Amino acid sequence: MEFGHITLRQIDFKTKIQSSDQFPLFCALVKMDSKQFREAAKQLVDYICDYHDNIRDRDVLPAVQPYFLEKQMPGSAPENGEPWTSVFNDIEKLIMPGVNKVMKQRQEHMRTEQKIFKGRMKLERMTHWHSPRFHAYFPTASSYPAILADMLSGALGCVGFSWISSPICTELEMSMMDWLGKMLHLPSEFLFSSHGKGGGVIQEAASESTLICMLAARSRAITKYSSSSSPKNKSPLNKLVAYCSTQAHSSVEKAALLSAVKIRSLDPDTNLSLRGETLERAIKDDREKGLIPFFVAASLGTTNSCAFDNIIEIGQIYIWLHIDAAYAGSAFICPEYRHYLNGVDKADSFNMNPHKWLLVNSDCSALWFVSLFKIIDLNTNISNLD
Amino acid sequence: MEFGHITLRQIDFKTKIQSSDQFPLFCALVKMDSKQFREAAKQLVDYICDYHDNIRDRDVLPAVQPYFLEKQMPGSAPENGEPWTSVFNDIEKLIMPGVNKVMKQRQEHMRTEQKIFKGRMKLERMTHWHSPRFHAYFPTASSYPAILADMLSGALGCVGFSWISSPICTELEMSMMDWLGKMLHLPSEFLFSSHGKGGGVIQEAASESTLICMLAARSRAITKYSSSSSPKNKSPLNKLVAYCSTQAHSSVEKAALLSAVKIRSLDPDTNLSLRGETLERAIKDDREKGLIPFFVAASLGTTNSCAFDNIIEIGQIYIWLHIDAAYAGSAFICPEYRHYLNGVDKADSFNMNPHKWLLVNSDCSALWFVSLFKIIDLNTNISNLD
Repeated sequence: MEFGHITLRQIDFKTKIQSSDQFPLFCALVKMDSKQFREAAKQLVDYICDYHDNIRDRDVLPAVQPYFLEKQMPGSAPENGEPWTSVFNDIEKLIMPGVNKVMKQRQEHMRTEQKIFKGRMKLERMTHWHSPRFHAYFPTASSYPAILADMLSGALGCVGFSWISSPICTELEMSMMDWLGKMLHLPSEFLFSSHGKGGGVIQEAASESTLICMLAARSRAITKYSSSSSPKNKSPLNKLVAYCSTQAHSSVEKAALLSAVKIRSLDPDTNLSLRGETLERAIKDDREKGLIPFFVAASLGTTNSCAFDNIIEIGQIYIWLHIDAAYAGSAFICPEYRHYLNGVDKADSFNMNPHKWLLVNSDCSALWFVSLFKIIDLNTNISNLD
Repeated sequence: MEFGHITLRQIDFKTKIQSSDQFPLFCALVKMDSKQFREAAKQLVDYICDYHDNIRDRDVLPAVQPYFLEKQMPGSAPENGEPWTSVFNDIEKLIMPGVNKVMKQRQEHMRTEQKIFKGRMKLERMTHWHSPRFHAYFPTASSYPAILADMLSGALGCVGFSWISSPICTELEMSMMDWLGKMLHLPSEFLFSSHGKGGGVIQEAASESTLICMLAARSRAITKYSSSSSPKNKSPLNKLVAYCSTQAHSSVEKAALLSAVKIRSLDPDTNLSLRGETLERAIKDDREKGLIPFFVAASLGTTNSCAFDNIIEIGQIYIWLHIDAAYAGSAFICPEYRHYLNGVDKADSFNMNPHKWLLVNSDCSALWFVSLFKIIDLNTNISNLD
């Protein structure tokens, strides 16, 4: 078998006469046609199944030292491409040593019906996140159905940056965000089906969601306080202050650094829950100092302590309320846990991560707004600001 | 066949007794084991091949109207999961109508060896980015080898946010960024193999790359000008000004809005190239006004006109130089086009998108820094700023 070849000269030559990329052309360039892909992909499907069927036998954490790979890799890319079989061998040798052995055993097993060799592999280079013996960090989901979805998504290769660039991608995302929103019993203002201003959109991480919401809130605050301020139109930016609990994920503080606004981490109560009273007092103090409170990130299930802020109390205070339920959010689908989300009706934005508990491969962070216009308006003309 | 089932009650019940997610457990929950995945995935591989083999016969642009899907989708998720066969049928019916017909024709063709029906499908809901008749936007790459890579990546499901969270992912990224950097003949300061401060990291989009670099430059400028300013430590933020050509992608202006800094779009010369002299004049003007020039985004191959800024001249001026070669960057691998990149040795950061010309599926934007420490230091303690 000789396929998967690619030479740079060929790309160059072809791109000269091509203004738009085209899948058949590109595949001709890499010398992998559908017949060859059919074969390679099915081989890879078997490889994936074998990996997961035997994952328990692998060491979860590798014993390698930093820069181990550098010594074993060629210093530069090959001038000519290599066939898939050769790339596949490199994967086994450099990325996943030990799999070859398991696969050979499996083939032997199929012939002889002997028991598959269960010896531990001591050659690991990967941290096996999906091993049943992996207990680090938060869970990250992966599942066979999600791999199928990714395969199709990769093959269709659409970029859905506007409705017309792929109508079905846009509408499917809207539909699925509504489904998920309804499963969480979000108020109808968060759903497209209410035909109001609200709706959901998929982000890559909760950190990204928090940053986007803080920027939108900043934009709203700047617009509001610029228009009502002195004729000199001095920017209120350096007066803006955001709030979170000391238990909040570091990404909230980071969002404030990137947004160039102040942030105050407030002490939660003895149950590690940020209370409305605490926030109210902080806001009062800051207003007396001439600052402008504009945003609070409340968490449901924080990273370090799984703490739940009191969103019913916090929701009474009129600043942008973003609820970050990245981790615990999935649980609210269950009626017996839904009460933790009571108060979401006062939020401006809410997010949770299906790529944690909901079997969806990374990255998938679901973010809803009561009014998408606040995000679309995010492009405040800051260049006018002093 | 009955697989792919999932019920929410099961997740709930199981998650109660599980602190960490585990691939085998999750797959048991969705009732899709490796045997069933093997079958479903191979069916999907055939589907993908058929899609690309027949893509030329499809209408590139669908004729649907906004909100077409809403009427055809159930208003909420099913309480109980559905088998893969049923999901697959929904894909054909709701996402990709017409494929079933093509597949049936194909099967018939294989039996009768008659010519495959070439009738145009009038039922499209997708914009087919990889059709040979698609000429909108810039190219976005997809290729069979890239789909294979995504399949494996999805199956391994590692989150490489630190070295130990997946050593081989981290080191493979470093190695591949060095390979690509060497193919582009980047100066050694951009490569890990120089064992200096520089290196490359994969981002999702050039827009993201520009934003990150502008934020890093902002951080550097704030640190520098805060320490040398009045004892009151007044923030220089509202004095910072970034520059780009009027031909630059809108994401540069957007990055400035998000970074809360001023930006000036400068007129290029008659060849649409931003010249050093123009930038120098703008910087001089702005310094006279008391502003602090801190960042310039030069483009090699702009979105609207494929314009090339004069980076040799611009590189003479001492502010953070970011070079955005999102689109044209791939061409610099060819010796006859490499001269367009001359001057990159004066840049602080450089990015290009392998997901455009280099056969890699979205998202893959390659970003290099002369000093990664500038990015790691990005967390300037802005809360100290007045």
